[in-house]
Amino acid sequence: MDFEKSSRVKKLEEELWSFMTEAVLPAESVAREQRSKLQDPHEPPHIVDELKSEARRRGLWNLFLPDDRFGAGLTNLEYAPLAEISGWSELAPIAMNCAAPDTGNMEILVRFGTPEQQGRWLEPLLEGEIRSCFSMTEPDVASSDATNIATRLEVDGDHVVISGRKWFTSGAASPLCKFAIVMARNTPEGVRDHRSHTMVIVPLSTEGVEVTRTLPVFGYDGGHGHCEVLYKDVRVPMSNVLGEIGDGFGIAQARLGPGRIHHCMRALGMCERAFALMCDRVGRRIAWGRPLADQGVVQQWIAESRMELEQARLLVLKTAWMMDTVGNRGASLEVSAIKVIVANVASRVVDRAVQAFGAAGVTDDFPLAAMLARARTLRIADGPDEVHVRRIAKAELGRERLVV
Amino acid sequence: MDFEKSSRVKKLEEELWSFMTEAVLPAESVAREQRSKLQDPHEPPHIVDELKSEARRRGLWNLFLPDDRFGAGLTNLEYAPLAEISGWSELAPIAMNCAAPDTGNMEILVRFGTPEQQGRWLEPLLEGEIRSCFSMTEPDVASSDATNIATRLEVDGDHVVISGRKWFTSGAASPLCKFAIVMARNTPEGVRDHRSHTMVIVPLSTEGVEVTRTLPVFGYDGGHGHCEVLYKDVRVPMSNVLGEIGDGFGIAQARLGPGRIHHCMRALGMCERAFALMCDRVGRRIAWGRPLADQGVVQQWIAESRMELEQARLLVLKTAWMMDTVGNRGASLEVSAIKVIVANVASRVVDRAVQAFGAAGVTDDFPLAAMLARARTLRIADGPDEVHVRRIAKAELGRERLVV
Amino acid sequence: MDFEKSSRVKKLEEELWSFMTEAVLPAESVAREQRSKLQDPHEPPHIVDELKSEARRRGLWNLFLPDDRFGAGLTNLEYAPLAEISGWSELAPIAMNCAAPDTGNMEILVRFGTPEQQGRWLEPLLEGEIRSCFSMTEPDVASSDATNIATRLEVDGDHVVISGRKWFTSGAASPLCKFAIVMARNTPEGVRDHRSHTMVIVPLSTEGVEVTRTLPVFGYDGGHGHCEVLYKDVRVPMSNVLGEIGDGFGIAQARLGPGRIHHCMRALGMCERAFALMCDRVGRRIAWGRPLADQGVVQQWIAESRMELEQARLLVLKTAWMMDTVGNRGASLEVSAIKVIVANVASRVVDRAVQAFGAAGVTDDFPLAAMLARARTLRIADGPDEVHVRRIAKAELGRERLVV
Amino acid sequence: MDFEKSSRVKKLEEELWSFMTEAVLPAESVAREQRSKLQDPHEPPHIVDELKSEARRRGLWNLFLPDDRFGAGLTNLEYAPLAEISGWSELAPIAMNCAAPDTGNMEILVRFGTPEQQGRWLEPLLEGEIRSCFSMTEPDVASSDATNIATRLEVDGDHVVISGRKWFTSGAASPLCKFAIVMARNTPEGVRDHRSHTMVIVPLSTEGVEVTRTLPVFGYDGGHGHCEVLYKDVRVPMSNVLGEIGDGFGIAQARLGPGRIHHCMRALGMCERAFALMCDRVGRRIAWGRPLADQGVVQQWIAESRMELEQARLLVLKTAWMMDTVGNRGASLEVSAIKVIVANVASRVVDRAVQAFGAAGVTDDFPLAAMLARARTLRIADGPDEVHVRRIAKAELGRERLVV
Repeated sequence: MDFEKSSRVKKLEEELWSFMTEAVLPAESVAREQRSKLQDPHEPPHIVDELKSEARRRGLWNLFLPDDRFGAGLTNLEYAPLAEISGWSELAPIAMNCAAPDTGNMEILVRFGTPEQQGRWLEPLLEGEIRSCFSMTEPDVASSDATNIATRLEVDGDHVVISGRKWFTSGAASPLCKFAIVMARNTPEGVRDHRSHTMVIVPLSTEGVEVTRTLPVFGYDGGHGHCEVLYKDVRVPMSNVLGEIGDGFGIAQARLGPGRIHHCMRALGMCERAFALMCDRVGRRIAWGRPLADQGVVQQWIAESRMELEQARLLVLKTAWMMDTVGNRGASLEVSAIKVIVANVASRVVDRAVQAFGAAGVTDDFPLAAMLARARTLRIADGPDEVHVRRIAKAELGRERLVV
Repeated sequence: MDFEKSSRVKKLEEELWSFMTEAVLPAESVAREQRSKLQDPHEPPHIVDELKSEARRRGLWNLFLPDDRFGAGLTNLEYAPLAEISGWSELAPIAMNCAAPDTGNMEILVRFGTPEQQGRWLEPLLEGEIRSCFSMTEPDVASSDATNIATRLEVDGDHVVISGRKWFTSGAASPLCKFAIVMARNTPEGVRDHRSHTMVIVPLSTEGVEVTRTLPVFGYDGGHGHCEVLYKDVRVPMSNVLGEIGDGFGIAQARLGPGRIHHCMRALGMCERAFALMCDRVGRRIAWGRPLADQGVVQQWIAESRMELEQARLLVLKTAWMMDTVGNRGASLEVSAIKVIVANVASRVVDRAVQAFGAAGVTDDFPLAAMLARARTLRIADGPDEVHVRRIAKAELGRERLVV
Repeated sequence: MDFEKSSRVKKLEEELWSFMTEAVLPAESVAREQRSKLQDPHEPPHIVDELKSEARRRGLWNLFLPDDRFGAGLTNLEYAPLAEISGWSELAPIAMNCAAPDTGNMEILVRFGTPEQQGRWLEPLLEGEIRSCFSMTEPDVASSDATNIATRLEVDGDHVVISGRKWFTSGAASPLCKFAIVMARNTPEGVRDHRSHTMVIVPLSTEGVEVTRTLPVFGYDGGHGHCEVLYKDVRVPMSNVLGEIGDGFGIAQARLGPGRIHHCMRALGMCERAFALMCDRVGRRIAWGRPLADQGVVQQWIAESRMELEQARLLVLKTAWMMDTVGNRGASLEVSAIKVIVANVASRVVDRAVQAFGAAGVTDDFPLAAMLARARTLRIADGPDEVHVRRIAKAELGRERLVV
Repeated sequence: MDFEKSSRVKKLEEELWSFMTEAVLPAESVAREQRSKLQDPHEPPHIVDELKSEARRRGLWNLFLPDDRFGAGLTNLEYAPLAEISGWSELAPIAMNCAAPDTGNMEILVRFGTPEQQGRWLEPLLEGEIRSCFSMTEPDVASSDATNIATRLEVDGDHVVISGRKWFTSGAASPLCKFAIVMARNTPEGVRDHRSHTMVIVPLSTEGVEVTRTLPVFGYDGGHGHCEVLYKDVRVPMSNVLGEIGDGFGIAQARLGPGRIHHCMRALGMCERAFALMCDRVGRRIAWGRPLADQGVVQQWIAESRMELEQARLLVLKTAWMMDTVGNRGASLEVSAIKVIVANVASRVVDRAVQAFGAAGVTDDFPLAAMLARARTLRIADGPDEVHVRRIAKAELGRERLVV
């Protein structure tokens, strides 16, 4: 287990920090300003385009993609510190073409796409010309058990027909978003095997696709919002199926590992920003004649946050290293572990920062309230804590071990 | 310590439940609908007026006010279960003219207002014709230490002149809101005694008063929002001062006790609603072939929530009973304790409900996300947890006790 | 719900405090001294006899027994504050003839014993002449599920024959202990109904009864120790059966309610003693030039302990009040709740006190280490937390409730 | 940061596991048996000598010592996995001559001892012929603030005279223990500088040294017990001073880093043993017809334990790597962090195992109760959690950082 950074990574880190401080972080208020003036809340503000050009110019483009034919060819371990830095601002991953859910979709298309699918959908994504969404979760069933997914897929000659309701299809409302990858059931309800679901590329312009609404998250709406999408007898050619009919679960597994670890890496960056804000605030704010930083309870918040972050980061690095050495499947328990750990650490660290800021912490004068909403959501997205906890427990219970 | 309910209270409870189920709860979706169509997000939807009339008709008006010349004349202990029921819906306290910050303002005016002040400001409040706000917290200082409050008050002949910036002046943006009670410093900065602050009634129409913006809380805006208010050389007659110059702290203390316990009572009602939603959801939602309710971890959430709620409620009742028997000052440690306990219990109970709902829990399809935002805010409002914890500790450390 | 203390209770409280400070607490070091010189570690030190006489003389005898033919005739709510006081010292319950497991056994004999059983076993117990034990838990099965209990009972004419191994049969090794109440299975293994277990009075002198060893608890041994008892074809007359064959579960249920609440009450007293020690210590101990009491983290320990204790006590009182008004069965969920709550509160409060004492806290120079061991055991004894939590959850899940 | 194990370490790991399973673990019951028959509870059982010879024969001797003139010459990172394995049994560190407090004393003597001191005291320690103790903590002051240490040291010509009372001088009662390293104050009380304490080698046979008692820890006594030692005008030659008068703090710092990380490593091994016992138990124990392992709450215990252990181990490894690369001082915050983290993780992991074992968990039929006592003590030994937490917080607060 070797976490030493290569010189390439160190150089990229430096360049990314420059990009962050020179371009991304100053752009945040501009983006807010521009967004407030746009008619369509889901349209990206103009400055995002500038940031994208700038990132590309600086060689900070598609860093997430381990396949060096299409992307930067970094290992997960190499990408980790870069993804963490990008997590300091919500604008950075978009600027660098490293934002979910496109990253997962690109990953799938690289690994499972036909040359035709790659030409039509992967290339414009890699170029940052279009965006995409991922339609898996459903409002009517407990999607934590993926076998519950009920959206129907019927084969009809050389077409497939999809019917169902999805939500948390993030980004579907953006005018840039051109297609969804949809997970649908190819067997009758009630069948519970691992060949019963299929992934299909569905252009959003297809007849029968309707983005019915966007869902606020703790009152936060807009941006690359979470959408509810109705698929009503949506017919697409069989050639839009990813892999074969029934391959859906296998592909989902492949997609989830990297997606989850990227979320974790970025969440650490978000936490570091919250932590820095907290340390700064408590040093300046005076109560009873002394800075808050002198209070024992505040010191405990700071030390616990640092200890939790440091431990979580090390496990994220180990997980990245395992994905690189034994593969996504071999690292799946570690992925489950960091998924749970980072979401909870983030919830606690940001919560402490909010408390340190007092009333200001729950407003939008600082990024903390939005971070807390995001951190809370991480405990649910990509499988709630409880599903991952059970998976880890069962694996541990199944191991041979010395009992004395 | 006798928590037995009188027959009057039992009857009011029944009537309040009828009002809730027949009028208030069904009005929630109507209010949402109406609000979405109003130009001014701070204007109350029309249905609120109907609910107010209805509450009054049913004898559910001004129940919060222990003074029977002006209100229902219920003790705190008697009001507790009624306030809890009203906490099930954000509309109920407004409908019943029992909503903060008006309740605190009415309480002050009853206890410290001159007949003239009562005639001009208290009466229309009691009638529900106007609303009011309370301007204490400031963005530029740690208001957890109230001696930090920096807004200036200068006596100028028979007028006082106020200058400063306040925030979390909830409700100031509502067209119904006619005046603020402002806390201001009558001594030079740095003086730390208990006669250095003063409360003044300031009509919002006074020259120099400007509601500069409303502050979102976790992305939630609108409604009776939290406002930032700039007071720029605001001149009001000396007769608008509550009590004497320098009485501010004393009056604030008197105001805080009832305000805090009302928040606690209502928060328990909010928790019970979240708890009911959780119990219902986990009974219906199926994962891996069984309802979520069969999972041990879910059962733990339910049992812990019940145990925490039950204990918190008993302490709230005890606190109410103490306020009734030994006075607000005598019960001040208990008030601090329930302030901390209920805010934290609410955060945990609602958080569990959100987790049980999965993705739906963070949207606005259910009231849980908004509740979680509110619960989180309770840990900061009216003094952050840490201030109350310290106060309790110091009191305990100061007691004589048997040491063996 | 009326927690007001009657004048009789107030008087008993005063007298009990006098007894504690004049007799019991000063006797602790004497008892330790005497015990260190006894050959048999399970023999009570002589001073216990003196304390018993003294308690009786002061009218502090058999207070636990609600039946006024045999005991003090106090309600549970009346006994609660007295039991709490007695929890300050392990010697007090024994001195007052209010110690487990005799209290539970006396309770059973009062309610289910035949006149003959009462004459032979109950009377000397009530007089404090003998002691008794309770043989339920078994080392070889998970006794948290009582249906697992495997000790066999065979009816043989007008005798029953018992075979099995029990442990945590507390007190069996004491020379004063004359009989056990044994829970045994009257149906073949695997049968799971509520008529399959029976309670039998077994004199310890019966052939086949062997106290094989005493079990240390966290290294603490001696005193009224926890014993392993082997029952090898133990034959006693049918008239020793409590109630009928198959009544065991019903009687166990009746026994557990009062037993559990008494444990809770006494545990609160133990916590108050630990709390007092902590407050005193942190006021005297200096680090970095200031008493530990000035440290924010220490203040948090104190405030949280007070808040937890106060809430737990109120719920214990409510539970006692319910047992008095709706019966043990009607209060069974509340009993489960306080069982869990108090054991955990005690673990936390005592743990904080230990931490405040530093190295001294884990030694026997102060009673804290022994208290922590006892508190930890409470989370397991009389059913582990998890069993009670599940019971509460299932009851909540089964209730009708308003869901909005 | 490279955690890869060298082939030497892998080979030592294998050999150590063989030693554990073939010799150490089977010796535990023998040692218990032998100890129960010894007159002196502080005399090591005979089998310890056999284990020492065996460890030496297998090349598992003095592995802790990074200095390859005297010990194995392993880095901290190399020693970490070996120390963890040795933590599975309390006998292993003694058998391998890697037990505290001798390791710290040897480390000091290697680094600060004169050749004469090394010849007289270090060599027999390295040979395992004698043992030693460390006299720092005092019963009368808060030793968490080391400047409180009050034992007096007076220089009298070419001798020093020591007077004071120490406790938690572990091992002093063992007949093998030949000397103490004593920390004493060379300046008047009240002086608070970092040259005011001195370390001195004091042979236990010196006149005026009296081991007054051994202190039980949670009821556990015996073994290499914690002693109270009275130093009454104890006169030793100036040549027994380590370094110079006033060097005490500097040497203590040097001693604490390795000592703390060794404790952490071994504690992880202890936790893994508890974890293995828990996993095994819950797989076998049946309640309500299913193994405990099927219960969601039990699964949560297992997953949380694994996640906590994995994270703690990674931070221990990072800390070891830092000690190797930037020195003990450079790694001092990480040492503080793992000190706090591992002690708390151990307390939680072992506590869960105890709960999973039910009543058996608090007895001595399994090693869990003793482990819980030890884990609890770790939160106090070598500085309580709170001291380390504050140190970490202050360092974080002092850093320059990007605040946006």
